[in-house]
Amino acid sequence: MGSQKIVEQLVKRSEIKGSSKKIVLLVMDGLGDIRHPDNHFRTPLEEAQCPNLRALAPLSALGRIIPVDYGVTPGSGPAHLGLFGYDPREVEIGRGVLEVVGMGMELRAGDVAARANFCTVKGRTVVDRRAGRPATEVTAQKVKLLQQKLGKIDDVTLIMEAGMGHRFGIIFRGPGLTGGVTDTDPHEDNEPIREAKAETDAARKTAEVVNKFQKRALEALGGHEPMNGVLLRGVSERPRIPTIEERFGLKCAAIATYPMYRGLASLVGMTLLKTGPSVAEEFQTYLDSRNDYNFFFIHVKPTDEAGEDGDHARKVQAIEAVDQKLPMLTESKPEVLAITGDHSTPCPMRLHSWHPVPLLLHSPRCGADGRPSFAEHECNVGSLGIFHAMHLLPLMLANAELLDKFGA
Amino acid sequence: MGSQKIVEQLVKRSEIKGSSKKIVLLVMDGLGDIRHPDNHFRTPLEEAQCPNLRALAPLSALGRIIPVDYGVTPGSGPAHLGLFGYDPREVEIGRGVLEVVGMGMELRAGDVAARANFCTVKGRTVVDRRAGRPATEVTAQKVKLLQQKLGKIDDVTLIMEAGMGHRFGIIFRGPGLTGGVTDTDPHEDNEPIREAKAETDAARKTAEVVNKFQKRALEALGGHEPMNGVLLRGVSERPRIPTIEERFGLKCAAIATYPMYRGLASLVGMTLLKTGPSVAEEFQTYLDSRNDYNFFFIHVKPTDEAGEDGDHARKVQAIEAVDQKLPMLTESKPEVLAITGDHSTPCPMRLHSWHPVPLLLHSPRCGADGRPSFAEHECNVGSLGIFHAMHLLPLMLANAELLDKFGA
Repeated sequence: MGSQKIVEQLVKRSEIKGSSKKIVLLVMDGLGDIRHPDNHFRTPLEEAQCPNLRALAPLSALGRIIPVDYGVTPGSGPAHLGLFGYDPREVEIGRGVLEVVGMGMELRAGDVAARANFCTVKGRTVVDRRAGRPATEVTAQKVKLLQQKLGKIDDVTLIMEAGMGHRFGIIFRGPGLTGGVTDTDPHEDNEPIREAKAETDAARKTAEVVNKFQKRALEALGGHEPMNGVLLRGVSERPRIPTIEERFGLKCAAIATYPMYRGLASLVGMTLLKTGPSVAEEFQTYLDSRNDYNFFFIHVKPTDEAGEDGDHARKVQAIEAVDQKLPMLTESKPEVLAITGDHSTPCPMRLHSWHPVPLLLHSPRCGADGRPSFAEHECNVGSLGIFHAMHLLPLMLANAELLDKFGA
Repeated sequence: MGSQKIVEQLVKRSEIKGSSKKIVLLVMDGLGDIRHPDNHFRTPLEEAQCPNLRALAPLSALGRIIPVDYGVTPGSGPAHLGLFGYDPREVEIGRGVLEVVGMGMELRAGDVAARANFCTVKGRTVVDRRAGRPATEVTAQKVKLLQQKLGKIDDVTLIMEAGMGHRFGIIFRGPGLTGGVTDTDPHEDNEPIREAKAETDAARKTAEVVNKFQKRALEALGGHEPMNGVLLRGVSERPRIPTIEERFGLKCAAIATYPMYRGLASLVGMTLLKTGPSVAEEFQTYLDSRNDYNFFFIHVKPTDEAGEDGDHARKVQAIEAVDQKLPMLTESKPEVLAITGDHSTPCPMRLHSWHPVPLLLHSPRCGADGRPSFAEHECNVGSLGIFHAMHLLPLMLANAELLDKFGA
């Protein structure tokens, strides 16, 4: 019996549902960093002036989490699945699903999603895969047109929404759809639009619908260059996974401003709370809805953006901004507060990376590691060790004293 | 999908083949040790004067690797498979294979190997399983005789080579052979030579050939005591595993002087480079062949020998000898340099052990743990944690920035 099963079995025996205990998972996106000549061998967490974290650290348990696996750099999808207690090596989130979810479109069980873009065709041949890079507003008009003319194909409803530039998202909603359909996008100019092919028997209907859509979209666009064709890729279904509530008995709320993270939270069944863009607004949303949930996922984005820009000073500021408002969380005394990131985005790399992410876990039962601060190198020697992110959720349940004993 | 699969999937998507980046894995055999009253609670790594490692350590990531699993003391075979990125719990290297490979015999795909020794028989009964412990030269003559008279059995070619004392190695090369054949060695004196039995249907032909060899060898030896019989054990096939190049896209060279380690490297498809016995010669071989490969396995033996002899001072010297020549590696600036052992051979134990092995990983992306030296207790608190050896290779690929992101 693996880690996942054992916890699910314990959850079943435990009384988690209806518990008034509060578990807060505060995710600073891309939090982890590396000491490097570029930052004079001090990471943003080491550099930041964080009186509140500094007070909390010695009374907490520290460790580091491996988002997916050793040496594996995760995208945001797998990284968050790990934090939500799923094994990200087992659950695949298709490109189409991530795209529409990242656009804030609501994806339901059984839905199939695709990334789409306008292209220029001559006959069936794609001469420009990006249709001359139209402005976002122009795309929005064309998407509206397609939505009006192609709202339904057979018993399948189509929901489309414009993205940036030439891109848009499509959701196919209807009975008997699955992912596993090849792209119609030839991925190169001067190639014909490909026919979507079912990779499994179950995907045959989806392939049919996709091909009908391809054909009818060409007709609907009426041959007007440069946006006279569409291409689909990453046709994929919403992952068929039990919700976080089904698995862990937790009533979960997501407090995040970016559509991508709201979307990822919705894939595991969290309720998406309305909130504002600042840390203070996010924390206030938590305080306002405290009584309605027992698990809160709070997502803070600026740490990752600074990391991707290679901007050490801004990453320091982003961390300090969270620290400044931290008392809003701690003074509400949640039973468990975990502070971590979904992955590292070291400023010297300007990219997501595989480096384990610092983790602080605070609860009345966490023990007190006595380390002077919350930073990568203090976390190396914490009592939690360096472990796969998917084990964090069970650890939080245990710290809330919500998990029964295993065995007699 | 386990750790192995996920990395293989990432490798397929990544552009590793043809990369000019250099990854160097320097293995000091049996490197790990334990603090003990016998060594006044200082391990050889702690004791050794290593200015070059001392300079490198603070700028590196440290950790410890578990060769096979918790509490599992590995032989050289599984220990090296782990370092080469294979799960040593999944790949079996038979005794016969290890024997012939350790003798430096070339084992090809489809080959079956056995450990053999001369014995004294009366009729079919083994009266001395070691044939009076003949000198190695005598054995060599007898092996030559067998090779002349028994070069072929049906469509199977036999290749024999003398080992130490009464021992020799046999390779069976021909179509339709597999391992899974019981020993003809009764493992006790005054028992009859056993008939080799196929443990699977696939092994029937092998069992037949082994039994024919047993019979014909007795005839060929002409009844002259004490070396008038042979016994076979550990009949096993070359592991059917993809090469390290097939799995990770790396063009690999092995620099090792001992046949055992050259043999193990050849089992995973590494090219064996000619080199001399000293550390300087091994490092020079690396420098000379730098442009032709992107992964280098460099094996240094004396640390293990000193450990097996319980000779703390000699193990210290062996480590210092490596440190002295280390600039030959570091000044060539490989993208990734990992320094570790295949297992621990603590001097106070005079044996291989299960203790995790110190690891130093250096790359422009490794971060800088800031620990003052490379030794067991510094590695305990490094950013890499304590992890199974098979994850080291993916970590090295990540540090070379050769692995794509997982998921979007």
